[in-house]
Amino acid sequence: MSHRVPMAFGTLMMGLACIPVIAGDPLPSWNDGPTKKAITGFVAKVTKEGSPDFIKPADRIATFDNDGTLWAENPVYVQLAFALDRVKALAPKHPEWKDKEPFKSILAGDLKSALAGGEKSVLEVVAATHAGMSIEEFEKTVQDWIATAKHPTLKRPYTECVYQPMLELLAYLRANGFKTYIVSGGGIEFMRPWTERVYGIPPEQVVGSSGKLKLEMNNGKPQLMKLAEIDLIDDGPGKPVGIQRNIGRRPVMAFGNSDGDMQMLQWTTMDHGDGDRTPRFALIVHHTDAEREWAYDRKSHVGKLDKALDAAPAAGWTVVDMKKDWETIYPPAH
Amino acid sequence: MSHRVPMAFGTLMMGLACIPVIAGDPLPSWNDGPTKKAITGFVAKVTKEGSPDFIKPADRIATFDNDGTLWAENPVYVQLAFALDRVKALAPKHPEWKDKEPFKSILAGDLKSALAGGEKSVLEVVAATHAGMSIEEFEKTVQDWIATAKHPTLKRPYTECVYQPMLELLAYLRANGFKTYIVSGGGIEFMRPWTERVYGIPPEQVVGSSGKLKLEMNNGKPQLMKLAEIDLIDDGPGKPVGIQRNIGRRPVMAFGNSDGDMQMLQWTTMDHGDGDRTPRFALIVHHTDAEREWAYDRKSHVGKLDKALDAAPAAGWTVVDMKKDWETIYPPAH
Repeated sequence: MSHRVPMAFGTLMMGLACIPVIAGDPLPSWNDGPTKKAITGFVAKVTKEGSPDFIKPADRIATFDNDGTLWAENPVYVQLAFALDRVKALAPKHPEWKDKEPFKSILAGDLKSALAGGEKSVLEVVAATHAGMSIEEFEKTVQDWIATAKHPTLKRPYTECVYQPMLELLAYLRANGFKTYIVSGGGIEFMRPWTERVYGIPPEQVVGSSGKLKLEMNNGKPQLMKLAEIDLIDDGPGKPVGIQRNIGRRPVMAFGNSDGDMQMLQWTTMDHGDGDRTPRFALIVHHTDAEREWAYDRKSHVGKLDKALDAAPAAGWTVVDMKKDWETIYPPAH
Repeated sequence: MSHRVPMAFGTLMMGLACIPVIAGDPLPSWNDGPTKKAITGFVAKVTKEGSPDFIKPADRIATFDNDGTLWAENPVYVQLAFALDRVKALAPKHPEWKDKEPFKSILAGDLKSALAGGEKSVLEVVAATHAGMSIEEFEKTVQDWIATAKHPTLKRPYTECVYQPMLELLAYLRANGFKTYIVSGGGIEFMRPWTERVYGIPPEQVVGSSGKLKLEMNNGKPQLMKLAEIDLIDDGPGKPVGIQRNIGRRPVMAFGNSDGDMQMLQWTTMDHGDGDRTPRFALIVHHTDAEREWAYDRKSHVGKLDKALDAAPAAGWTVVDMKKDWETIYPPAH
């Protein structure tokens, strides 16, 4: 609040700082143990007024990876499932795809051959399914798809294949004055249409990979067109860049599950050499539950967790053992 | 709020929605008349529950240009003054500048010759003063400069050369549930270090022009280095791009003062062809007060206002006549 603003405003605004009181266990889907204690201990420490570890609410920035951290990423990333469905839906308008890779293999249901072309194939699919339309058209496509598409093995809408313990964690942090952000390698426009409903995270708190945009006037109507050119890959070393670009503050808590999150965790917890001694917290969700979810790490084709797992002990990062630490995985069906 | 979050949380969060009650005139530096009435009438209309024009708080996004809208931009943009001061401060480390344009002319105090090289000269100055360092180093440089530098004719810190009526407007909108953003052609990292203190706008609500960033490990410390390559020019057609990138929602109110804001105002108020009929509001600050501030528009070298002024009546944009509408220009000195 600026001191130049009329006094009445300052007083009123201070009256808005309501303090929530939490009754009962805010994290019922987390089993008691050191992992849960690490989280609640950190939050208690930094929110206690007068404590040397106190962090003022404005600085309580918590960033969450999405794929594998907030929702399931097996057997394939959800956005890839979306892209493949879009290729099928658009195929009637593209007769040439019948003889053109990677589209030919996608339409034949042969994902392995489709992706044999590597990055070039992926970019062609992204260009065909994520570009050449306005952001409003793309948003509607995502909304329509996510409302009906189902996870291939869990047989539930993807928006129900989210982790109940993480939903509780998001709410718990917000109740303690944290601002919760998604910082994902996934597409920013792919997530924004549904993150508020599913995670309570509004569009302006979603950071993700993005393509370039171009303003056009079409029939006197302004449109932001999605181009087939990459703007930011918000993964690995791109995550601190995305954080700086869209948040402009260093997080005090960061949550991930793969090597693609390692730089975000380092950026959050490591000494920057600027004298900042604010307490910081980072957590890795380790997928250890082959029965209720999937068990994967070092050799996985999705959410590979290798270097970050090795780095965790020395870095002081908390590692969730999903099998042991989570009492529940998914929210109840409804 | 997700319906999957434990019930206790949902109830608690609802209890947080405190409604501020404003006593007296929230805009005392605005003279009574149609301009002030247009602002307060719009806000009253869209915040009245049950009204067909009601806008839910989450959608109350208000975007403000900075130079010429929130603070003075004459005789030169503040960021240019900063860059020139930086060239002088860095000159001892760059003996070659004595014979190299545009630095030679800058050091001789000849701004006109310095800028004769056009965009190329500007980019060279930006590269020399805004790149090649970490974001933390740059932030500290800005903080040190802005704490001591003074406006050449007003003889006050630049952060006091802000418009009192706009400070009141920012506070008034926030008190009515609006989220206030800066969307400026100025550099994002140049603004973020002081906007919270001066305008009550936190770093994550500042959108601006930016250079590319690169994550580096220097002596085991993660650093985001500022590169000399442009990432986004957040001006003209770049403003809707910056809004989409960092906010992901279309504003319902937008405030500017120059042709560089025209596309932001159009993006805010014009029909996108998507069926959205939310009421929208846009305002142009017209600098008409040669005595208390500066009078300039169509021919100005800063904040040129020509096309947007012509477009305003048909577009339904409110135009502030600074001389007539503002009872005060700057906040009281202290």
